[in-house]
Amino acid sequence: MNVFVIGIGLIGGSMAKDIKRLNPNANIFGIDNNASHLEEALTLNLIDSKASYDDLQSAEIVIVSIPVDAMLSELPRILNHVNDDCVVFDAGSTKATLCKNLDDHPKRRNFLACHPIAGTEFSGPSAAIDGLYQGKTNIICEVEKTAFKLQEKALELFQQLGMRIRYMNPEAHDKHIAYVSHLSHISSFMLGKTVIEKEKNERDIFDMAGSGFESTVRLAKSSPAMWTPIFEQNKENVVETLEEYIQNLEAFKQLLLKNDYEGIYDQMNNTNKIKEILKGIPLNK
Amino acid sequence: MNVFVIGIGLIGGSMAKDIKRLNPNANIFGIDNNASHLEEALTLNLIDSKASYDDLQSAEIVIVSIPVDAMLSELPRILNHVNDDCVVFDAGSTKATLCKNLDDHPKRRNFLACHPIAGTEFSGPSAAIDGLYQGKTNIICEVEKTAFKLQEKALELFQQLGMRIRYMNPEAHDKHIAYVSHLSHISSFMLGKTVIEKEKNERDIFDMAGSGFESTVRLAKSSPAMWTPIFEQNKENVVETLEEYIQNLEAFKQLLLKNDYEGIYDQMNNTNKIKEILKGIPLNK
Repeated sequence: MNVFVIGIGLIGGSMAKDIKRLNPNANIFGIDNNASHLEEALTLNLIDSKASYDDLQSAEIVIVSIPVDAMLSELPRILNHVNDDCVVFDAGSTKATLCKNLDDHPKRRNFLACHPIAGTEFSGPSAAIDGLYQGKTNIICEVEKTAFKLQEKALELFQQLGMRIRYMNPEAHDKHIAYVSHLSHISSFMLGKTVIEKEKNERDIFDMAGSGFESTVRLAKSSPAMWTPIFEQNKENVVETLEEYIQNLEAFKQLLLKNDYEGIYDQMNNTNKIKEILKGIPLNK
Repeated sequence: MNVFVIGIGLIGGSMAKDIKRLNPNANIFGIDNNASHLEEALTLNLIDSKASYDDLQSAEIVIVSIPVDAMLSELPRILNHVNDDCVVFDAGSTKATLCKNLDDHPKRRNFLACHPIAGTEFSGPSAAIDGLYQGKTNIICEVEKTAFKLQEKALELFQQLGMRIRYMNPEAHDKHIAYVSHLSHISSFMLGKTVIEKEKNERDIFDMAGSGFESTVRLAKSSPAMWTPIFEQNKENVVETLEEYIQNLEAFKQLLLKNDYEGIYDQMNNTNKIKEILKGIPLNK
């Protein structure tokens, strides 16, 4: 089985690791515009060989895990190179722009739009880990636009990796994911910024911060190169979530200013039910 | 050694566990206005016996781990009951109001104002864990107001538990802790609220949320009964942090609306240095 991973970082690298472990005979080819990442991926045995777009004609499965802006320019080119029996899927955090962009591509049937909800705050080939996708959700959009046999081939792989599948249209995906993923990243980045700005002496933060702070700012370690185009492509939904979040924070502040501590208690108490909601979320660590 | 733990939940219970493990001969007495918590603490062997304020005359060490509003009424009463060689310390997340409140107490020298920066999002006796304080910071305020010998006795215990000590005045403590702890809790609670409000069908959140969301809303599981009085006592500082946080979120939104993606990249890139700052924070899990 010839598997090509285009963009060999945390997402593509972790997938490569699992595929190799589960299919020892798989040939994993890596393509990356970052030469040192590609070299690192070879050294780490994430891939068996380096490759280029010209080699894609022999591909059976192509995994595209690159920033979502690069996805727009690269996926049409990638599809141009693959044979009719090859399935190409992405792992991007936005779906609407990409799906629209590929709608008229002559090889649209070779493409499956995916978003595996998995990751860590780290990036690059060295961030790749075993079993990242076990028990995680993979959201598939516009499944009906992919050839049956190629859907099957991809689903077989996702099943092997331990993922559960949810089908959704690209617009619903982008709207929901803004709430449960994109907003979390902004809240975390801005929390980190607020504290760093105030505490010029970083030693003070270090000494007084506990695991609660660490948890809420964990996502502020994420890659700006990956996240900037996500926010750009999902701007409308992200702005909406931000407005609602800011409104809620402002309302909380007003309760404080009015000394309405019963109101503050109620807000927290009502939100405590997040405990039940979170129980089913699989963690990476 | 007679050790009394007043308020036998996560904080007091974890301390009781470690003290018992490190000093098998210690007698741990528990006092709690929640009868079922006290019973649970006995069953879990967190304490050896139940006790009341009248028994405090035999205490050598008293740990007060109750909500910070109860602290204001209870600590003066507790101090009234102890003998001259007994050290009483608290574990509250606010320090200025409490220290001011106890300033004229005839037994002020028996009290050490403490804030061990440790915990989890869970509460009650069953949340108590071994080694919670290992490697954690304990902030001590107004150390000079505590009798030398009693400072020593408490510090010996803290050393046994593996804590490192930082001295700070109560006002500086409350100001800094608002940034690295209190604001994190509000950002988390309001993030949880924003998402719950939007996603009425909780199944959708569950399916699409990953470990990043889980991490940023973890603190929204925290106890409202514990946190409401903290926000009340530290209102002024908390409002200030909230205003700065809201301003930063608003500025981020404006960058999005102006399509200033270079600005967005820079904001995230500058905040990435949180990686280095966080490296030294000891985690509970």
